[in-house]
Amino acid sequence: MDRRLLSAGIALALGAGCTLAFAQAKPEVLVKQRQAAMTLQGKYVGPLGAMAQGKIPYNAEVVARNAAFLEVLSKMPWDGFSPDTKGEKSAALPAVWNEPAKFKEAQDRLQSEAAKLAQVSKGGDEAAVKAQIGAVGKACGGCHETFREKR
Amino acid sequence: MDRRLLSAGIALALGAGCTLAFAQAKPEVLVKQRQAAMTLQGKYVGPLGAMAQGKIPYNAEVVARNAAFLEVLSKMPWDGFSPDTKGEKSAALPAVWNEPAKFKEAQDRLQSEAAKLAQVSKGGDEAAVKAQIGAVGKACGGCHETFREKR
Repeated sequence: MDRRLLSAGIALALGAGCTLAFAQAKPEVLVKQRQAAMTLQGKYVGPLGAMAQGKIPYNAEVVARNAAFLEVLSKMPWDGFSPDTKGEKSAALPAVWNEPAKFKEAQDRLQSEAAKLAQVSKGGDEAAVKAQIGAVGKACGGCHETFREKR
Repeated sequence: MDRRLLSAGIALALGAGCTLAFAQAKPEVLVKQRQAAMTLQGKYVGPLGAMAQGKIPYNAEVVARNAAFLEVLSKMPWDGFSPDTKGEKSAALPAVWNEPAKFKEAQDRLQSEAAKLAQVSKGGDEAAVKAQIGAVGKACGGCHETFREKR
């Protein structure tokens, strides 16, 4: 549906008709969208991990930008894990649906750590920023440990 | 590389070694990341288009949230259109690389219209919001018209 969703804006602009059913995103679309959010989280957290590990030079500007992006991206995947996506091909483990409270806790943890990183990255304390990048990494890893297939 | 990128944070958290080369994102990874940004733009602009068209009920809270998301997402796809991705399978037309100034203009237009929508959506003027949703839709469609394969 993402292409049709996108088309909505265009259809609007062009004045064309449109028969979208927004309340009924198809399971495969939900999976694609949640994976897209994970892909972008990976894009922006990866360099931060490398900086925190000293593998690439520390760049405060990039950290602040990526952290701000991550704070927003960390809110995006979760509505894609609806029960009707259980049968779709993905790395999500049954625990996502069997342990909803624990899964929610893991989501909240990532969002909270990412928000904290965005906050800390606005200051000039490199050590504090690096420590918080580690906390975000732990939130990623902790959730994947329980809720994502090993690959 | 997105999985490896994501692993960086986790590796950090776990104290594991890591040999990532962040300056050298592979072309197929860049394509995957830029498509992920487009997928999420579609996720969040779609319902807005439907609201502006009266196809689903107007919900000011959803509009404000989606508009804030779109403002951030509109900054994310562009570094994925690097010249070394020309040979990758995607809907990007050669115009992306043959008309860089025009492509940049289209990117800037989307970012500007999305930022304006985020701003307008904080107020209570539904008609103004709907008009600005249309402007965002035009920015999507205008860019796709020239730079994206018809599907």
